[in-house]
Amino acid sequence: MDLLNLDGLWITDPYSIHFLIGIHLDTMERFSALLLRPQQKPLLLVNLLFGIEATEDFEVLNFHDADDVSAIMKSLVLGKNLGVDKYMRAQELLPLLDSYNITIASDLVDKLRAIKSKEEIEKMKVASLINDQVMEKVPSLLKVGVSEKEVADQIEDLFKDLGADGLSFDTIVAFGENCADPHAIPSDRKLKDNEAIIIDMGCIKDGYCSDMTRSFIMGHNELMEELYHLVNKANKEAFNSIRTGMTFSQLDKVARDVIGAQYKNEFNHRLGHGIGQSTHEPYDVSASNHALIEPGMCFSIEPGIYLKGVGGIRIENLVYIDEDGNGVLLNHVDQDNPWLNNKG
Amino acid sequence: MDLLNLDGLWITDPYSIHFLIGIHLDTMERFSALLLRPQQKPLLLVNLLFGIEATEDFEVLNFHDADDVSAIMKSLVLGKNLGVDKYMRAQELLPLLDSYNITIASDLVDKLRAIKSKEEIEKMKVASLINDQVMEKVPSLLKVGVSEKEVADQIEDLFKDLGADGLSFDTIVAFGENCADPHAIPSDRKLKDNEAIIIDMGCIKDGYCSDMTRSFIMGHNELMEELYHLVNKANKEAFNSIRTGMTFSQLDKVARDVIGAQYKNEFNHRLGHGIGQSTHEPYDVSASNHALIEPGMCFSIEPGIYLKGVGGIRIENLVYIDEDGNGVLLNHVDQDNPWLNNKG
Repeated sequence: MDLLNLDGLWITDPYSIHFLIGIHLDTMERFSALLLRPQQKPLLLVNLLFGIEATEDFEVLNFHDADDVSAIMKSLVLGKNLGVDKYMRAQELLPLLDSYNITIASDLVDKLRAIKSKEEIEKMKVASLINDQVMEKVPSLLKVGVSEKEVADQIEDLFKDLGADGLSFDTIVAFGENCADPHAIPSDRKLKDNEAIIIDMGCIKDGYCSDMTRSFIMGHNELMEELYHLVNKANKEAFNSIRTGMTFSQLDKVARDVIGAQYKNEFNHRLGHGIGQSTHEPYDVSASNHALIEPGMCFSIEPGIYLKGVGGIRIENLVYIDEDGNGVLLNHVDQDNPWLNNKG
Repeated sequence: MDLLNLDGLWITDPYSIHFLIGIHLDTMERFSALLLRPQQKPLLLVNLLFGIEATEDFEVLNFHDADDVSAIMKSLVLGKNLGVDKYMRAQELLPLLDSYNITIASDLVDKLRAIKSKEEIEKMKVASLINDQVMEKVPSLLKVGVSEKEVADQIEDLFKDLGADGLSFDTIVAFGENCADPHAIPSDRKLKDNEAIIIDMGCIKDGYCSDMTRSFIMGHNELMEELYHLVNKANKEAFNSIRTGMTFSQLDKVARDVIGAQYKNEFNHRLGHGIGQSTHEPYDVSASNHALIEPGMCFSIEPGIYLKGVGGIRIENLVYIDEDGNGVLLNHVDQDNPWLNNKG
């Protein structure tokens, strides 16, 4: 790894540590970090308690609960130019300020993680295949009178049955006015006729995550159908616009231009997010991310329109970028026929 | 709240935000924080996406995914003296450095959270009562041939049956040499005769956590029995030593002195941790925490000895400090008869 002009770089994000040295760390409130230095093996600084041992690939330095971790950190990097990742906590960061020029340098690792290998893409495909298989069964669960919680529980059972290792996030099942909350939590609210439904779900398989959203309309609802067509158009045009040399902010704008002025404020989130070992990874598909879209990257495209107190529509697919710079869909569930007619 | 000489204090810990304004926030990788300023209502800075609305008790300022959060933060605190909590991330903290003198000032909130009200103590009692009831049933699950995972699953079912809202952490079930890992993850390892067993478990009820460890010995094992007596003595002497005017570091030392020189390095963690809405809260019971133990505080006392490749023993109770400064046990499960004799 090229450390630029840094004398050391502390990585605290457990997913990045796993990516770099293959160790899953969960040290809860106790600090742990991987130190990268020029011409030296990575060094893992971790509480003795967790019993992590050195390998050929990295060294380990243990501390005890009563030790002064900042003093230890200072003894390990003697130069002045220190990098940290975005997630280092104030508790450990502030005591280092008087000894170093500190910059956030996790882009180095973010970039490495964002470019998936062929093996990683294969694992992403498997996780999304399970997600597709479960989503195919979802319409049969959606009957007038069923509650959001009941559907969410049935989806979780389906994931287990199909061999998922777990959920990549808590399943979102929203009916009617609850669809206006992009992060709705399933409640006892029962499905009624002539309203919208949002299902946003994903699973973990072999360490990699899936994530997909489909919206449905039970019976008929003119306003929700109008939103559906617009969101679906934004989803497809964004996907079809992907090309070499494009930035994430440009991709975000394609979808935002389709949604247009009328619902500008009701499409109130980024177009998408990176995904891999964790559900939300760098890079964002948003107006503020001017990084280039590159082969090996995986991310979501998920435009939505949310009308407070009324309802909402979101359609999300995962995409990866192949060697030639083309976008390839990881999800294959139909997105053109949202109409259900199941009176329960 | 006395803000000392601060012009503003940013709180990012979701548990502290819940404690201060009653809102449960889970904004994942998206930043959110509560700003406390002299003579002003608390202000919650949160992404528009989460739809949080102001109340009589606090104001809300929304930002969008593409906004420059640091610029917004700077516009909200005009003075030079800024406090942050221990958990603020480098991503938001570093851009503030050129505008402020920054100190970690979350002790203010930590102290308020650490001193539980009578209502909170009552909730802690209920969560620990459920934990006691489940632990009473644990010996009947421990048969030669059962696996760690099987016992952990049965414990989770018992918690559900007794009305717990969830686990306060993943249950630890360790047999034999696995007992040497203080944070062992339940495996397919089966229980054999004449070895130690560690069960560390807790539940959440009505927003508050329980946490207790019992060790058992299946059949006979002289070394594990020796450790058991020593750890049990350390546990009891520490509890009995609690008095007004004592510091957490002094309490830690009482237990460490009982464990003594022989197993000094094998008692490789702090004596305990604060607990309440989350399982691990300030203050630590450790050699580095010189805060006074005060009425209303709740914490664990959990000495342990761990012999790598061989086994280990830990005994943990929760304690609260009553109005008169006395320690009161929250757990009531027997800790003097660890012997089991169940050949399955």
